[in-house]
Amino acid sequence: MLAEIIAVGSELLTPFRQDTNSLYLTGQLNQLGVEVGFKTVVGDRREHLVEAARIALGRADLAIFMGGLGPTEDDLTREAVAAALGRELKRDPDLVAQLYARFASRRMKMPENNVRQAEVIAGAAVLDNPKGTAPGQWLELDQEGAKKIVILLPGPPWELTATFEEQCLPRLRQAVPPQFLATRVLKVAMAPESTLDARIAPIYKQHAAVETTILAGAGEVQIHLHAQAESQEAAQKAVDKLAEALEDELDELVFSRGGESLEQIVAYYLEMRGATIAVAESCTGGLLGERLTSISGASRYFLGGAIVYTNDLKSALLEVPPLLIAEKGAVSREVAIAMAEGIRKQCKSTLGVGITGIAGPTGGSEEKPVGLVYHALADGRKTEVIERRYPGDRERVRWFASQQALDMVRRKLI
Amino acid sequence: MLAEIIAVGSELLTPFRQDTNSLYLTGQLNQLGVEVGFKTVVGDRREHLVEAARIALGRADLAIFMGGLGPTEDDLTREAVAAALGRELKRDPDLVAQLYARFASRRMKMPENNVRQAEVIAGAAVLDNPKGTAPGQWLELDQEGAKKIVILLPGPPWELTATFEEQCLPRLRQAVPPQFLATRVLKVAMAPESTLDARIAPIYKQHAAVETTILAGAGEVQIHLHAQAESQEAAQKAVDKLAEALEDELDELVFSRGGESLEQIVAYYLEMRGATIAVAESCTGGLLGERLTSISGASRYFLGGAIVYTNDLKSALLEVPPLLIAEKGAVSREVAIAMAEGIRKQCKSTLGVGITGIAGPTGGSEEKPVGLVYHALADGRKTEVIERRYPGDRERVRWFASQQALDMVRRKLI
Repeated sequence: MLAEIIAVGSELLTPFRQDTNSLYLTGQLNQLGVEVGFKTVVGDRREHLVEAARIALGRADLAIFMGGLGPTEDDLTREAVAAALGRELKRDPDLVAQLYARFASRRMKMPENNVRQAEVIAGAAVLDNPKGTAPGQWLELDQEGAKKIVILLPGPPWELTATFEEQCLPRLRQAVPPQFLATRVLKVAMAPESTLDARIAPIYKQHAAVETTILAGAGEVQIHLHAQAESQEAAQKAVDKLAEALEDELDELVFSRGGESLEQIVAYYLEMRGATIAVAESCTGGLLGERLTSISGASRYFLGGAIVYTNDLKSALLEVPPLLIAEKGAVSREVAIAMAEGIRKQCKSTLGVGITGIAGPTGGSEEKPVGLVYHALADGRKTEVIERRYPGDRERVRWFASQQALDMVRRKLI
Repeated sequence: MLAEIIAVGSELLTPFRQDTNSLYLTGQLNQLGVEVGFKTVVGDRREHLVEAARIALGRADLAIFMGGLGPTEDDLTREAVAAALGRELKRDPDLVAQLYARFASRRMKMPENNVRQAEVIAGAAVLDNPKGTAPGQWLELDQEGAKKIVILLPGPPWELTATFEEQCLPRLRQAVPPQFLATRVLKVAMAPESTLDARIAPIYKQHAAVETTILAGAGEVQIHLHAQAESQEAAQKAVDKLAEALEDELDELVFSRGGESLEQIVAYYLEMRGATIAVAESCTGGLLGERLTSISGASRYFLGGAIVYTNDLKSALLEVPPLLIAEKGAVSREVAIAMAEGIRKQCKSTLGVGITGIAGPTGGSEEKPVGLVYHALADGRKTEVIERRYPGDRERVRWFASQQALDMVRRKLI
């Protein structure tokens, strides 16, 4: 089965915005054994959209349209797909009522143009959008004996993923012939891609039945394993065998064996050990706290933190001795240690983290250049500290620093 | 003049890789006054490629193909475009000689399949590739009186940009009639897209010469204005006139007039007023601090913050009375106010922000549901507080809360 993904929106034809939903959808479709043959981006012009819809319906078995389902006059996907199919658009009275109710529940009056969102292509099923007002649509066609599926999804990523997972996946599993695929993702933090690849290439090359893809991002390398076989068990076994061999080689470098994020893994270990954590951040400005609390239920292990941009505050909140700062500098091994120990004491937590560094692009010196960061981890007995010099811009330096700190916590707890 | 950009390569149809060249090319083309009407991604299959080329040549005046010019059997762009045009591919003897010479100069024997790179579509000019072995191609057509341009470019970004800038830009400047374009971006925080559009649609509809695009993200709506005219002054004037009318209507709702982010605008006002800020965060867990410190030079106005996940810490760091928390609850108007005032006092800052709420997905109750957030802003005289109930998941609730808090700070300072 061949799919085409059509992203709708003039903003996606500017130098500023890019469709990213299609990467998510491609991953989901591949897992069902559906291959993506084409991706198209088209703007909010009726004639362009109708033409793009006609082309997709001609060359693909599954056409997924993303975006253009909102209430404004620019939102033309419904009528363009209907026109390409030669079908009518009908206003769905249930949807109209739902829209009014939704606004009423927030004590808002619904703008009249919003009823456009209740227009449904004749013969289409409505896909409830759990995160927004624009519902999706699902249509099965029989074009001269060839079965085709047309899906309309809302463009905002959180709405698209929720609608796809709740409404489309169950339907697609019915409609697509079953395939036996298995995938695994191993993740490694803070290791260079080329070094890592040199270590593992001799291993994965011996497992030709498994497709191995290595993806490097900021402070993280992902090893994607993918196999297809004559049964689910055989596919899973092929993938697991290679995963095991890679884990043997990389050992504790691997932080995730099932695709979990570093935050999730740290949360898991903190809970498992019954440990709590508190953070003292200078250059990361709250990023480490933000990442630790991005996990639901974080209050079970995260107690709090201090963002200390000034020296006064480092002393007031964390009891870092002013003399130490004066002697060693705010960006120093010693101050990182004092911050970690100070926040641990202040919050009465099992672990305390301190981060101080120079995120840049300004503020560096020859002795303490941009990208220099100290990360300290206190546990009440000994406090370890790691010094790193990160490449890249302010955003990357801050991200690397938070990544390194999380990985220190993980290694402490395993 | 309408362009289509076609990215060729099966790797661009996986969940892991994305075409980014098209953003660069779109920027370059827009500056020449050429609009991109379509973007297509197609894999390395002959029949798909020929079909995609036929479609592009039918609907666009300028078709740019990227990738598929290498020496391997997967590299099919040359022959597919030739087939779509009904033209021959000819081996260019000069190019063959250059390829041999290039390999010889590195004392390497050229693999036989490399001569594929010397195949040129009949009638095309060869575009020298300053960074690699695969040359591009340029072809001007007269299709039933309509002038069309076809460009083949190498896929690797450094080869594509070098070939485009050295070889294509001069040719395009000759081929494209000179255009005068102007753009402006207005941004609005924390207003629903449909309400906003209902307010401004009557205005921008009166300015038909300006193309208006409305983009809504989390807690932010962007209004993109774009005009084309017979002179640069006329284009700029058209855009500025509509921007002014929209600003009159929306007044202080507009936070950015030149595309700046909300963080940048808040940083700008804080610096301009010589004011400093400190934050006390509960449900946002450091996100507000992270956003305020994402701007280089943040230490000039950002003093610090407290991330207070526990009640004890709210009292210890911010002097929130334990009795107040017991009486009103940690998520309450009163505690938000006490947090804002407490962090302001602790950090001796001009402004203090307090955020407390329920980010979810767990922890909500009937009285205090998920998404309920209190935002307080203290300035030493009076403390204002805003109660909101946000829709969406944990990530969105936290983002909205930080966005609302930043907007409160902005409104205080304007």
